[in-house]
Amino acid sequence: MSKTETGNFFEDFRIGQVIAHATPRTITQGEVALYQGLFGSRFAVQSSDAFARAIGYPRSPIDDLLVFHVVFGKSVPDISLNAIANLGYAAGRFLAPVYPGDTLNAVSEVIGLKENSSRKTGIVFVRTTGCRQDGSPVLEYVRWVMLRKRDEAAPAPGDHVPRLPEAVSASALGEACPRIDVAAYDLALSGSPYRFADYAVGEKIDHVDGITVEEAEHQIATRLYQNTARIHFNQFAEAKGRFGRRLIYGGHVISLARALSFNGLANAFHIAGINGGRHVSPLFAGMTVFSWSEVLAKAEVPGRDDVGALRLRTVAAKDHPCADFPLKSGSDDHPAVLLELDYWVLIPR
Amino acid sequence: MSKTETGNFFEDFRIGQVIAHATPRTITQGEVALYQGLFGSRFAVQSSDAFARAIGYPRSPIDDLLVFHVVFGKSVPDISLNAIANLGYAAGRFLAPVYPGDTLNAVSEVIGLKENSSRKTGIVFVRTTGCRQDGSPVLEYVRWVMLRKRDEAAPAPGDHVPRLPEAVSASALGEACPRIDVAAYDLALSGSPYRFADYAVGEKIDHVDGITVEEAEHQIATRLYQNTARIHFNQFAEAKGRFGRRLIYGGHVISLARALSFNGLANAFHIAGINGGRHVSPLFAGMTVFSWSEVLAKAEVPGRDDVGALRLRTVAAKDHPCADFPLKSGSDDHPAVLLELDYWVLIPR
Amino acid sequence: MSKTETGNFFEDFRIGQVIAHATPRTITQGEVALYQGLFGSRFAVQSSDAFARAIGYPRSPIDDLLVFHVVFGKSVPDISLNAIANLGYAAGRFLAPVYPGDTLNAVSEVIGLKENSSRKTGIVFVRTTGCRQDGSPVLEYVRWVMLRKRDEAAPAPGDHVPRLPEAVSASALGEACPRIDVAAYDLALSGSPYRFADYAVGEKIDHVDGITVEEAEHQIATRLYQNTARIHFNQFAEAKGRFGRRLIYGGHVISLARALSFNGLANAFHIAGINGGRHVSPLFAGMTVFSWSEVLAKAEVPGRDDVGALRLRTVAAKDHPCADFPLKSGSDDHPAVLLELDYWVLIPR
Repeated sequence: MSKTETGNFFEDFRIGQVIAHATPRTITQGEVALYQGLFGSRFAVQSSDAFARAIGYPRSPIDDLLVFHVVFGKSVPDISLNAIANLGYAAGRFLAPVYPGDTLNAVSEVIGLKENSSRKTGIVFVRTTGCRQDGSPVLEYVRWVMLRKRDEAAPAPGDHVPRLPEAVSASALGEACPRIDVAAYDLALSGSPYRFADYAVGEKIDHVDGITVEEAEHQIATRLYQNTARIHFNQFAEAKGRFGRRLIYGGHVISLARALSFNGLANAFHIAGINGGRHVSPLFAGMTVFSWSEVLAKAEVPGRDDVGALRLRTVAAKDHPCADFPLKSGSDDHPAVLLELDYWVLIPR
Repeated sequence: MSKTETGNFFEDFRIGQVIAHATPRTITQGEVALYQGLFGSRFAVQSSDAFARAIGYPRSPIDDLLVFHVVFGKSVPDISLNAIANLGYAAGRFLAPVYPGDTLNAVSEVIGLKENSSRKTGIVFVRTTGCRQDGSPVLEYVRWVMLRKRDEAAPAPGDHVPRLPEAVSASALGEACPRIDVAAYDLALSGSPYRFADYAVGEKIDHVDGITVEEAEHQIATRLYQNTARIHFNQFAEAKGRFGRRLIYGGHVISLARALSFNGLANAFHIAGINGGRHVSPLFAGMTVFSWSEVLAKAEVPGRDDVGALRLRTVAAKDHPCADFPLKSGSDDHPAVLLELDYWVLIPR
Repeated sequence: MSKTETGNFFEDFRIGQVIAHATPRTITQGEVALYQGLFGSRFAVQSSDAFARAIGYPRSPIDDLLVFHVVFGKSVPDISLNAIANLGYAAGRFLAPVYPGDTLNAVSEVIGLKENSSRKTGIVFVRTTGCRQDGSPVLEYVRWVMLRKRDEAAPAPGDHVPRLPEAVSASALGEACPRIDVAAYDLALSGSPYRFADYAVGEKIDHVDGITVEEAEHQIATRLYQNTARIHFNQFAEAKGRFGRRLIYGGHVISLARALSFNGLANAFHIAGINGGRHVSPLFAGMTVFSWSEVLAKAEVPGRDDVGALRLRTVAAKDHPCADFPLKSGSDDHPAVLLELDYWVLIPR
């Protein structure tokens, strides 16, 4: 029997199955700095221990998306090594801040299975939970992926599509954000005068800037997360594949869009929930990523007068500046769109 | 009103205006390691805590140029986002050592304004000061940039060219260098037997080696500094621009030249002052950077018998080994020259 | 006399000569994170402080190969700056774990010299020892390189080929591995159920995955080690050289092969000895590296019932998946093979 992992196929999963993923990871200031070099984020809370302490954190927390990518990466060898597509996200919540020195583990539960009509593939729904060394959860989210079957004749391993919330309830947000001292939140240092009250539902913001992605950058990022999906790393194989090139990890686009969103959302310092997300089209090295955001909703977080929640749709596009807020062309996706992400951020009141 | 920053134009500045720049930044061992991977510097004081402690530092200080780039980067969104050219530097002094864990802020004062005769552009002179979390200054320098006007009909916002020193006085050097124990400074470990007395005014040193720069490298470096100047990152826009390519941050050339200068100046462990600097021509990815230095002057630092000061001119050139010490071709700059930097270093006596 | 180092030539060495290498280096979490981003290793002991503590380490040790590369890098300016080829390794032993915050130094002793029949070149054998700040050794190994002579007429500086062991004795392994608590070694978290008893002599494992290497990646890695060999960095010179391109540091291939070997050898968490190694052919950017391993021998480590030793041959190949276990084509090396490395790993019993 081979000692080499080749990943699970659709018929290998069962509803209720719980998979503890390999390779726990201690996140340090080293990861923080490299993530900074790769994305150039400027949110003051994550950039400055002094700023974070002034408002009530013990020190700068790890960027929410770095936590997300590390947890996600752990699930790849078990869940999505044979994925054809990463179809969606839902019910994502950040549950506790993560600090340098914390060690992250991840576990996934299979909560849905649906064979496709072709009987060659199926969709697996998992709820993945990231935990700290003490077992306390820091992040949970649902994702669903389309997987190949190893054996097309194998019976479907289950048939259940889970009910997923259209959005995370505002009352479920904020657990990963300590109460902040708003008076100590310095708007000159944070880079913007705009707080919760200054944003309006329906407001659209062009984040203006563009970032061109290089092969070395996305490979370094994706290895930093110990994400082993082959399509990102192996040009020899991909040269013969669908695109002829390495495909950039979809999470790379999320991080670029988030870093770009600083220009217009500088005080939206914490991602509290992920309502949904679609990787609309693939990104390849050499392309330039732009983004824009729309405020979909505003909500008070129960019991919190320090921060409010903005529900944002952030859209990333390739080789297309976003002054025209691209999303749909008629009923189809605009051809430049890479990502549509629906999420909650917290911002000082 | 747009929430997106588009940067200041010439007519937005006033003499005496003070701008506190956004995004404080905690510098950690993570930044140090990534800077090391990007430039490959080998100065023992910055490389080894043990070496630094032996001579009198509490631990390795952060590389002077990393401090410079982080402070400079903060000033970009406010000062030079609409710059046509970064014209020069003067009066740069390192005022205190910076250690991992320190948080840097930056503030700039407008000390000069001069409209160009075209009335389409003007020159802004700023003194930028980098401070630690406790407000104590670690670096100050003057730079001047040419900026577009938003509105060519706008009146000039001022007309004053500040008097700048031709060089920093030797008596103003050394504040960022604790008294060192010269007997404990190990010349085998530092990589060179040459001390202050071994260098002669007029001596020229070819630093021999060359380093080819990749797009991923300069982008990672420049994002590490949270420098947002668009011309470095956005190939989609630059493809239609002046050069057809992303322009590499001028500070990248300074760091490469400094790292190369180890070969010949291994004991010149601290940059104490920046007298002047010119970015002579642009650098693009794929080019190879070489450098050479000339000793312009030697000075004792008042009250210090542990270190002496060398005033250096370091020149960087592209795709041109520097055995011939390129600088001028007749009255013009040699076409290969990228950078001419005039600065003070400290070296054990 | 020039202050610029140009490296030693064959006739500059003497048998018994001891060279203390320059630039001590403190290894921090920053280096660990960047190494992770460059190679994507997933061995749990090096990835998680919590996992390492559970089995008996005080925290995660630095990856063995990062220690090797840093020590090796220090020796380059003195030993191999003028090398034509890095011919082999032997008698490599890891002698103590290295942790973040430790500072590494290196010293080499010349143990053999052999002029080639052409009298233009010769082979230098050195034993290099890496030490911590307290002087205690952490690594020793022998390597031999072919060097040019500066002056072909110079007499040979010596004529002695040292006797080198065919392999490190199993009784000499394990000093860098504390006694581990095997019951606490979590095979779900480590990513594989296979322990010492599950591997058989003669077993071959295809590590399946491939990693494409970019210029920025190998340059950043090699500078991280302060390895100054010019052939890796200077495209201007190499464009006119043997290959027309920058040659990737052979150690980069070793690290890639080791990271790939996780898939099949996930519990082989520590490299304890290096018996031999050959860089069979050069690697260039854009190529994809694959690898496979064969278990050459199994050994008990005297006095240790916690771990056993596997002697492995790991082979790396370029643009050639390794399902066919390439090594020789008849009596010649298979043209795709980059590296053949013979080494000992420790794995829980």
